[in-house]
Amino acid sequence: MSALATVRTAVRDFLAAVAVPGEVCVAVSGGADSLALAEATAYVLRHRDVRTRALVVDHGLQADSAVVAAEAATVVKSLGIDVVEVHAVHVVGKGGPEAAARAARYHALREALPNGEGLVLLGHTQDDQAETVLLGLGRGSGPRSLAGMRPHDPPWGRPLLGITRAQTVAACTELGLEPWQDPHNADPRFTRVRLRTEALPLLEDVLSGGVAPALARTAAQLREDTEALDTLAMRVHERAAREDDLDVGVLAAEPAALRRRVLRRWLLDSGVRELTDAHLRSVDALVARWRGQGGVWLPGNLEARRRRGRLSLAGPEPTTRGE
Amino acid sequence: MSALATVRTAVRDFLAAVAVPGEVCVAVSGGADSLALAEATAYVLRHRDVRTRALVVDHGLQADSAVVAAEAATVVKSLGIDVVEVHAVHVVGKGGPEAAARAARYHALREALPNGEGLVLLGHTQDDQAETVLLGLGRGSGPRSLAGMRPHDPPWGRPLLGITRAQTVAACTELGLEPWQDPHNADPRFTRVRLRTEALPLLEDVLSGGVAPALARTAAQLREDTEALDTLAMRVHERAAREDDLDVGVLAAEPAALRRRVLRRWLLDSGVRELTDAHLRSVDALVARWRGQGGVWLPGNLEARRRRGRLSLAGPEPTTRGE
Repeated sequence: MSALATVRTAVRDFLAAVAVPGEVCVAVSGGADSLALAEATAYVLRHRDVRTRALVVDHGLQADSAVVAAEAATVVKSLGIDVVEVHAVHVVGKGGPEAAARAARYHALREALPNGEGLVLLGHTQDDQAETVLLGLGRGSGPRSLAGMRPHDPPWGRPLLGITRAQTVAACTELGLEPWQDPHNADPRFTRVRLRTEALPLLEDVLSGGVAPALARTAAQLREDTEALDTLAMRVHERAAREDDLDVGVLAAEPAALRRRVLRRWLLDSGVRELTDAHLRSVDALVARWRGQGGVWLPGNLEARRRRGRLSLAGPEPTTRGE
Repeated sequence: MSALATVRTAVRDFLAAVAVPGEVCVAVSGGADSLALAEATAYVLRHRDVRTRALVVDHGLQADSAVVAAEAATVVKSLGIDVVEVHAVHVVGKGGPEAAARAARYHALREALPNGEGLVLLGHTQDDQAETVLLGLGRGSGPRSLAGMRPHDPPWGRPLLGITRAQTVAACTELGLEPWQDPHNADPRFTRVRLRTEALPLLEDVLSGGVAPALARTAAQLREDTEALDTLAMRVHERAAREDDLDVGVLAAEPAALRRRVLRRWLLDSGVRELTDAHLRSVDALVARWRGQGGVWLPGNLEARRRRGRLSLAGPEPTTRGE
């Protein structure tokens, strides 16, 4: 199958699996990923009563960014997209230039939707997913961040997570398009660029290839596992809830990973801030390693206590302090 | 805290958390990891009525391996270990020299135990764990392999998974020991060596440090999640079992990750061999995406079918084939 046909199939399969609204948006940077995605979306939806709408984001980060955006808009229009808009955003904010640009982009895309609802297709590829997983791995922030980007996380849709970046480039070549090359994508000051250009190629070499698809596969499995645990934790939470308290007996019968998910949700919903893993384990010890210990003090000046088979959370009680 | 004290504390904490038998074995290569582990084990157990026993494995892979093993035995004896034995193994087998040596080593260690039961402490460090996670990641073999080595997987115990390799070297220096440097540990023909000497240092650089502990932390969380799902899947399996069949209604109420775990176990226990992810998903579709489809043929010439609310597995039935 040609690269173009592969990309179109991926978009068709994605749109067959989700509820397709009357208008489908595509986020466009002008790069190969988003041009291939825009063409495939226009192609797949050409005989359906669905309006296609390209949202070209101009981040204003390069001197010629307005020109790049206008050219991308012209190209996308020629690909059969019904409506094409350029949205200029102003990148400011915390967390370094990559994070700030991402935040500004997602904000602008969401603003472009009526009530923030709808479907916006994003051009993230298997390579982007591999980089995201490696980033999560380096942070050690656990299975949730390792699970990478979700294929469908409304309003966002990512039909190309199984497609390589090289396939989107080849699809553009088949279409006779010359995608824009973002100079940021070669700037080694960005962590993601170094992962792409240095770390992943070395891992490919050391591990004899197949690393990007392996990372994407792992992410997909982790996502299923994480979703299952979240669903099951919600059910346990419902069974354990006693007004604002939790029933210790219900929790104690469950495995540690479920107990801690329930406790985490309960504590955050009850107003605890900046919950660390150590806090969570101390509260869990009230359930799983109970030997009559006292309460656990948590950020927000709250105390988790076990009494008469219930966990409760309360602020300081000065009158009973001397007891 | 000095490195030696840190290693001793890790061993003490480990032995406080498990059931300690009358004899505790330590696997010894002569390297820094295992010498530090042996000393800490002798130190922690010196006033307890527990016999310590070092199992020095001579893999016979280098010309002087018998000399190295004898020297390691002498050193370990001087550290206060009660009984020291050298076990020469013959490395043959599949899967490359690393895998063959590992298999021979584990076999010899297990053989050294009465009925294969007891406790054998292994010197795997946080760095070994990070390498194991990266290896699993490269294989894409999912959360289970990413979860790395277990701290306690009887008869094996790994008290040093939270200790760095550098800390074990520093502990040996404090003890005035000169650990053996396995030349295999610098041989770039081994995948693990290249992960250690090339991939992990580059990731440390790109991701601004902390990669090894992050990988170890992720492994620990994945282990808890995986264990929880395994436990919950076993409970669902018990509720769904109807003689040799499975009740579809019980399965259908559960999240995908649980359903597939139950189906995987059921199919493997029923004699299906070489089960792929695609097979598993086809069988799961009989539960979760039922539209009256036919059976799923599986390796071992078995067919999984759905009938009257039950999943069953059967061999070919030539007499009913024409129906």
